[in-house]
Amino acid sequence: MNVKFCIEGEEEIGSPHLEPFIATHHDLLQADVLLISDTTIIGPNQPAICYGLRGLCSLEVHVQAAKSDLHSGLFGGAVPNALHAMTELLSSLHDHEGKVLVEGFYDDVAALTAEEREELAKLPQDDMAYMQSLGLNELVGEPGYTTIERTTARPTLELNGVYGGFQGEGSKTVIPAEAHAKITCRLVNNQDPLKILNLIEAHLKAHEPKGVTVTVTRHDHAKPFIADFHQPAIQTAVEAYRFAYDVEPHFMRMGGSIPIVEAFDRLLKLPVVLMGFSLPDENFHAPNEHFSLDNFDKGLRALVFYYTHLERV
Amino acid sequence: MNVKFCIEGEEEIGSPHLEPFIATHHDLLQADVLLISDTTIIGPNQPAICYGLRGLCSLEVHVQAAKSDLHSGLFGGAVPNALHAMTELLSSLHDHEGKVLVEGFYDDVAALTAEEREELAKLPQDDMAYMQSLGLNELVGEPGYTTIERTTARPTLELNGVYGGFQGEGSKTVIPAEAHAKITCRLVNNQDPLKILNLIEAHLKAHEPKGVTVTVTRHDHAKPFIADFHQPAIQTAVEAYRFAYDVEPHFMRMGGSIPIVEAFDRLLKLPVVLMGFSLPDENFHAPNEHFSLDNFDKGLRALVFYYTHLERV
Repeated sequence: MNVKFCIEGEEEIGSPHLEPFIATHHDLLQADVLLISDTTIIGPNQPAICYGLRGLCSLEVHVQAAKSDLHSGLFGGAVPNALHAMTELLSSLHDHEGKVLVEGFYDDVAALTAEEREELAKLPQDDMAYMQSLGLNELVGEPGYTTIERTTARPTLELNGVYGGFQGEGSKTVIPAEAHAKITCRLVNNQDPLKILNLIEAHLKAHEPKGVTVTVTRHDHAKPFIADFHQPAIQTAVEAYRFAYDVEPHFMRMGGSIPIVEAFDRLLKLPVVLMGFSLPDENFHAPNEHFSLDNFDKGLRALVFYYTHLERV
Repeated sequence: MNVKFCIEGEEEIGSPHLEPFIATHHDLLQADVLLISDTTIIGPNQPAICYGLRGLCSLEVHVQAAKSDLHSGLFGGAVPNALHAMTELLSSLHDHEGKVLVEGFYDDVAALTAEEREELAKLPQDDMAYMQSLGLNELVGEPGYTTIERTTARPTLELNGVYGGFQGEGSKTVIPAEAHAKITCRLVNNQDPLKILNLIEAHLKAHEPKGVTVTVTRHDHAKPFIADFHQPAIQTAVEAYRFAYDVEPHFMRMGGSIPIVEAFDRLLKLPVVLMGFSLPDENFHAPNEHFSLDNFDKGLRALVFYYTHLERV
């Protein structure tokens, strides 16, 4: 067996050099299967295989009213206010429940299969404990889906920042000339990030409030990833986890994005298997990040099993 | 004739000590008429008498969702977003044209009389030039009113500041836990600032979005002022302007607030006459503030005429 290691240190900044490297080194990178260990399992004794990751797109919205801020005593009542326009515009993006109202947003979303919903339903999720840990009295989301489905298998459109006008202490009688909003979407197969950006821009243009000009700046985007968990490369991973942990692994999707996974999948056209061993509470990217020694041992055993059984793939 | 001068230096910070002083010195301040020169005229050769000022009330709105910001990859789709809630809440305050939708907001507004509308229609106002000077393609405001009526004789509710979430460069996949908005209203007779604050709070509570908590902090408030321009004290001012400028003065209302005017009116119960002589483009509160020497002379003549004809009041 030949093993090729691909080690890169730019994942946290979106791996800008990896995709061109893959594209120009097809031969060097040829393989039967691609294994990435960057996902989590459910708990110390409950492994899981991640078969889907959400994609991403990101944009900024700018609303311009008058050419400068105006005094509300002199102008209030007769001129557009950039913040009135911005809140009107942004509130058109969702219904009260949290469903996205951008025309066509859900058109390309692959519906969850009955089998997937069954698998995801096996994952432990206690909504009451979840709410309590977050300080919430209520959950808000797309009707008809569970919390796990909403956070991993359904797309979202989130306002990440909104600002305009006066933010200091007390009050100021200003009519703001401009307002800004930052938006990111989490996307699922088969949504295309560029198509979604087009749909959002079209929605914003169609809903442009009276008296103001709306412009958009685009930022990052990444495609979603999904694998068929029936394929031999993943079924062998099931056996490997079963061997190392002595329990049946779950299938799960993750709500975040690992853009290179989709790039490997698309450019190398080989099975991508996500075999992770970290626990959800190991302080990723935070002080005291740690990794369980027990999962280090079981992970080694699972991977050795996997490598030695790969001939079946 | 006896003249009492009242000179105070706190007007720009809301005159916090003047109202208690008036309240405790009724006898000292007794008079037949109160004259204040703090308003503008229309142009170098067109005097005007201001007979109405707008009042004010001010508040801050806070929306709290989860107890801290959350990662949109892990939680996006299932939890409330403070900015979604804030934009939904704020967009409920106006219709698309700019009419205020707070229940009861207009209930106590004294309608403009036919005579007032006639007087206000005499004031020079070129909407095209006005838009051009502000860099606007369109004016926005309460339907059925002219620009001058909207900015001086109708109440408003303005968003002065809105903020929450990420404001730095680029994007950040955060679900904000909190959002804030600053609001001021310009009020007209017979709206009561405290009643309006109650109505706004009731509206915000009634429209509280799912999954979040809305709280309110109150700031300043000041009552609106209006005088009947038929009364002798004001008709004598008409004669005084006519004498000094040799043209008929207009009647106007001002969109801003001079809170002490209303306090003098309410506490001393004597006619308040606003005889100003400054021009609108004299850079109030700004570098190179100035005052026309011509209006200084004409103002002196108008005031001398006024004092010497006061026996008719």
